[in-house]
Amino acid sequence: MTPVIVRSIVRPNAGVVRQLGEYGVATVHEAQGRTGLMRPFMRPIYPSASVAGAAVTVSCHPGDNLMIHAAIEVCRPGDILVVAPVSDSTDGMFGELLATSCQAHGIAGLVIEAGVRDVADLTRMQFPVWSKAISAQGTVKATAGSVNIEVSCAGAVVHPGDVVVADVDGVVVVARDTAEEVARLAEQRLLKEKRSRERLRTGELGLDMYGLRAKLAELGVRYVEDAAGIDEMKR
Amino acid sequence: MTPVIVRSIVRPNAGVVRQLGEYGVATVHEAQGRTGLMRPFMRPIYPSASVAGAAVTVSCHPGDNLMIHAAIEVCRPGDILVVAPVSDSTDGMFGELLATSCQAHGIAGLVIEAGVRDVADLTRMQFPVWSKAISAQGTVKATAGSVNIEVSCAGAVVHPGDVVVADVDGVVVVARDTAEEVARLAEQRLLKEKRSRERLRTGELGLDMYGLRAKLAELGVRYVEDAAGIDEMKR
Amino acid sequence: MTPVIVRSIVRPNAGVVRQLGEYGVATVHEAQGRTGLMRPFMRPIYPSASVAGAAVTVSCHPGDNLMIHAAIEVCRPGDILVVAPVSDSTDGMFGELLATSCQAHGIAGLVIEAGVRDVADLTRMQFPVWSKAISAQGTVKATAGSVNIEVSCAGAVVHPGDVVVADVDGVVVVARDTAEEVARLAEQRLLKEKRSRERLRTGELGLDMYGLRAKLAELGVRYVEDAAGIDEMKR
Amino acid sequence: MTPVIVRSIVRPNAGVVRQLGEYGVATVHEAQGRTGLMRPFMRPIYPSASVAGAAVTVSCHPGDNLMIHAAIEVCRPGDILVVAPVSDSTDGMFGELLATSCQAHGIAGLVIEAGVRDVADLTRMQFPVWSKAISAQGTVKATAGSVNIEVSCAGAVVHPGDVVVADVDGVVVVARDTAEEVARLAEQRLLKEKRSRERLRTGELGLDMYGLRAKLAELGVRYVEDAAGIDEMKR
Amino acid sequence: MTPVIVRSIVRPNAGVVRQLGEYGVATVHEAQGRTGLMRPFMRPIYPSASVAGAAVTVSCHPGDNLMIHAAIEVCRPGDILVVAPVSDSTDGMFGELLATSCQAHGIAGLVIEAGVRDVADLTRMQFPVWSKAISAQGTVKATAGSVNIEVSCAGAVVHPGDVVVADVDGVVVVARDTAEEVARLAEQRLLKEKRSRERLRTGELGLDMYGLRAKLAELGVRYVEDAAGIDEMKR
Amino acid sequence: MTPVIVRSIVRPNAGVVRQLGEYGVATVHEAQGRTGLMRPFMRPIYPSASVAGAAVTVSCHPGDNLMIHAAIEVCRPGDILVVAPVSDSTDGMFGELLATSCQAHGIAGLVIEAGVRDVADLTRMQFPVWSKAISAQGTVKATAGSVNIEVSCAGAVVHPGDVVVADVDGVVVVARDTAEEVARLAEQRLLKEKRSRERLRTGELGLDMYGLRAKLAELGVRYVEDAAGIDEMKR
Repeated sequence: MTPVIVRSIVRPNAGVVRQLGEYGVATVHEAQGRTGLMRPFMRPIYPSASVAGAAVTVSCHPGDNLMIHAAIEVCRPGDILVVAPVSDSTDGMFGELLATSCQAHGIAGLVIEAGVRDVADLTRMQFPVWSKAISAQGTVKATAGSVNIEVSCAGAVVHPGDVVVADVDGVVVVARDTAEEVARLAEQRLLKEKRSRERLRTGELGLDMYGLRAKLAELGVRYVEDAAGIDEMKR
Repeated sequence: MTPVIVRSIVRPNAGVVRQLGEYGVATVHEAQGRTGLMRPFMRPIYPSASVAGAAVTVSCHPGDNLMIHAAIEVCRPGDILVVAPVSDSTDGMFGELLATSCQAHGIAGLVIEAGVRDVADLTRMQFPVWSKAISAQGTVKATAGSVNIEVSCAGAVVHPGDVVVADVDGVVVVARDTAEEVARLAEQRLLKEKRSRERLRTGELGLDMYGLRAKLAELGVRYVEDAAGIDEMKR
Repeated sequence: MTPVIVRSIVRPNAGVVRQLGEYGVATVHEAQGRTGLMRPFMRPIYPSASVAGAAVTVSCHPGDNLMIHAAIEVCRPGDILVVAPVSDSTDGMFGELLATSCQAHGIAGLVIEAGVRDVADLTRMQFPVWSKAISAQGTVKATAGSVNIEVSCAGAVVHPGDVVVADVDGVVVVARDTAEEVARLAEQRLLKEKRSRERLRTGELGLDMYGLRAKLAELGVRYVEDAAGIDEMKR
Repeated sequence: MTPVIVRSIVRPNAGVVRQLGEYGVATVHEAQGRTGLMRPFMRPIYPSASVAGAAVTVSCHPGDNLMIHAAIEVCRPGDILVVAPVSDSTDGMFGELLATSCQAHGIAGLVIEAGVRDVADLTRMQFPVWSKAISAQGTVKATAGSVNIEVSCAGAVVHPGDVVVADVDGVVVVARDTAEEVARLAEQRLLKEKRSRERLRTGELGLDMYGLRAKLAELGVRYVEDAAGIDEMKR
Repeated sequence: MTPVIVRSIVRPNAGVVRQLGEYGVATVHEAQGRTGLMRPFMRPIYPSASVAGAAVTVSCHPGDNLMIHAAIEVCRPGDILVVAPVSDSTDGMFGELLATSCQAHGIAGLVIEAGVRDVADLTRMQFPVWSKAISAQGTVKATAGSVNIEVSCAGAVVHPGDVVVADVDGVVVVARDTAEEVARLAEQRLLKEKRSRERLRTGELGLDMYGLRAKLAELGVRYVEDAAGIDEMKR
Repeated sequence: MTPVIVRSIVRPNAGVVRQLGEYGVATVHEAQGRTGLMRPFMRPIYPSASVAGAAVTVSCHPGDNLMIHAAIEVCRPGDILVVAPVSDSTDGMFGELLATSCQAHGIAGLVIEAGVRDVADLTRMQFPVWSKAISAQGTVKATAGSVNIEVSCAGAVVHPGDVVVADVDGVVVVARDTAEEVARLAEQRLLKEKRSRERLRTGELGLDMYGLRAKLAELGVRYVEDAAGIDEMKR
């Protein structure tokens, strides 16, 4: 219950992080069994934003960015700040000055379940941010919080050192100790999707490729020729 | 109540569909008496997305895209998939593989009251989609639904074979048997708007052009010179 | 209570308006003590939209744009229309024809707590709009309202003649009689931020620059070396 | 596209309507294959509200109740008004005076995808209403709409003469020509649920009663004894 | 821009306040021309809550209740606290201890565009509150704000000393200098509504009583006998 | 990533659970440093609902209640089911039959970030539920999930065996290994609040009791006598 800042965390393998970033959010999310995705209200501030890195987590009071300053000190190059206020807020807790500080320390991006401001500057700086709002609302530096504890951010549990992958499809979190296995499964999935893509491109139907016709029959879905067929069914 | 797939639907006249697409959503919506518009949470995944076509409708369980696969088989080139889950969902029920399949069959676009993923790919493929969310959340193929029955999608009733017109202003649905008449009225409206535009451009006021001064008077709206005039009114 | 149109308002100093526009929303909002910001659901229809001007206010019935027509007549070049319906609405109360009329009269932009349509045209015309929705939903011209009275728009009080500053970070309102002072404070703030930026860029921490270490200690925030440290704290 | 009032509609069998009302929303919704449910933002104004009847539908402009007045004339005792504005609105389009008129004509209740007011009076009168908001916002009588056409209300398609069943669980719509069959299936379902209830009450598990253990195994769900078992799984 | 506490405000006539409270929100809102209503997300914490009084306004930082404490000191018996944070918040800024303090000073109720907690206690104390959320989220006492300045609360402008009327239909604000006139108009309205009620109760239609048949004709609304009539119209 | 059911969890001390339940959500939340609160959209289905117990957690696909059935088997009397779908859903995943099964096994309540149905029955059974929606929407039993893993539910991280406390103010989660300490702090807080209550009841101001006058001065808040004083300040 005491607010705490954990200086040192175990980080995931850099090569695995890079791989997961290349696979992208949708593929990684599927590879780990459709879990770990943040809610879709988390949007990038510019469409080409894309990043992967180790999570440094921040739990804070809404409208107060004191703990973000504290978190920057314990980050290493390539880390991603994951900021989770304890209650709903759209305030602009992060802007161009903090982004300047982040870039000076090699921080790769920000995921924040709140607002962000100076988005024209952040876009020019190519500092990628996923947030639930864009808002100029200024914040204070007055209340305690924690850095590098487990947090709930936009519907996902995030532990310090988890891999965060984010792109235009959203944000997904991969537990550090499963990251390598998820990367392996994602690669398999990409290969399989490549084959599926080729078949679909030639006009083969998903119904046939995935063997869904039997499923439809089993579920009692009936085919009729036209609208008149529906009326006949009812008799 | 039995889930059903209707193979064959009556489609609107291709020329009329093309015309309605050229007029655009706002004009078509006005021309048919300000009805048939989907709710504004339906947004295109890229700003230049624009399409018109015949609706092939899908009623499905949230988070399950089995029926989308079934629907693709009964589509013809130029059709638009209109997907309406039976309850609220933001799951990404459609992605790049399904879009590849759609393009292989000539399907012109997708309107879905749920989520969509792989939007970077879809944008590159120029496959236009209007959805209520962007989400990587994966879905299953496990529950029955129907294809080409009447559905409620984002606040509009859509019948199979209705004309769907979609652009950056949203999505509007035109009943098949009124499409020709709506096209005619839309054309008239465009001509009238062109004349209005010319007059407004020269500085003529809408108040005069539309004859609204009498309306204001009839409604009891009063003019005062300045803020002091309000205080005088109260005496 | 009688609906009223006030023809003449006191406008802010043009030079001050220009300055505030250059400082931008986030800086101006901070400079006036973090007040006057509209809610973040107010978004520009294109990202580069940016404007500053004197507010001409419109209070109207939802789904009715009669009073916008009335307001245009009392605007002067450089003014910004601020439209506040008396209840929630997403209807597209403003489109390309009204924008044509606005540009003919030199009106600089629109802020509307409702919907807007023809956004492709408005973007081409570079007529900047901040709205809470994009919607083709047509509106009527049937009910009374007021022009140039005090309104509540998206969470901010706006008086006729207040300065409205809007960009990609949102919309902020500055009271006319404090505009000059706010501009002065904003300039000071920019200078201070410039110095801070230089220091942050070299890697100095916000913790040190803002003297926040003492604050953290005072608030009882504790530092531990790693996760094991948390467990020790609990003993 | 011309607004129209249809005076006479085909109504469902009164006995079937009564039955469906007794079965309740959840049972009827299941019996017809989990379709026809309105979105859950539709809430009763008092918890004990419960009704079933034939739908008289109203399509109208938001914030305008002219067409509700027109609809009352074509209602018969036991009917339910289903009001669907063409765009989002929370305005209080219905209050105690309209309810008095409804009760004078034997109208059994109101389902409205907008707001309602005078809810203290409506509760005292025991006039059941399902709405998406409670709002005193007054409305006008100025724009055209239609009565007894097909509408989309809160996510459900409603035809004039469909059966509307509403209680504390929400609102469900049953097509008139399937109402009898749905009633039969609902009754079967109730019997089956009664048997299930008895078994569950004695402690039998749903896992066994519904035969779900095989399903879990088929889906690859694994059992472990405790948290340590999860770590073992990862090795 | 300097935060300020105004000790003394001009209050409305107590008799007029009492009258407006008796008329209720819906009637008062209509009487003043359908203006001044707060958004419908403002709900009472218990259904029988009902109050009228003079507004003492609070502008504060979200999640910080320091200024509520400051406001209590300047209240007089019968006043209503109107609390408007400068940005969106659902935090529980007010609970049983503050309510105890309010009741000790004769404060009649609270209107807050944020959250409230201890609602079981507040209900037992019969201290009426209208809020946008119920939330236990605790708040701090760390940032400056103002008391008795003009605020925007839930979509309405509120000046210190305005009359606030609140009941189960919501919250309406009446400007102090028009309160007497609004009370007079509200009384007229009630008399007129009483007569309307009697006529509607006997079965007279709103269509006839309000003379709306001509309006329908003027708007081009057509009557047809049944569904077949719609098809005939299209020919 | 493999879905898993953990049969056995460590539960908190029963006496501590009972204590925390008596202290209530607001007090417990404060006692543990304003953390652990679920978002305020989680509401009880009846106002007097109140419960405390050990969490048995369920991670599942939206619209699928298979894993709830699996979870019931591993519950012990007094446990609370905490159900967290992996994406947004309002479907009614739990109803009277499941509640019957829960009560047969002594389960004390349900917290679900989705919908619930049969609320009239659940209320009669006095089975307490906190949910984000009431919806009759039926669900399937078709997809894998996990029981007794760490989940994010409505903004809070919940571990199996954590203490869940829920009442009309919402839902708060207390980590099992801090529960005793939180109970101790809550008791201290209640004593302190009792003393505060007595002082406030006699009319003492929070400003004085909490020593806030100095804070106001330090923050630069100024007192003026009346509205005229604000104008003077600006000079």
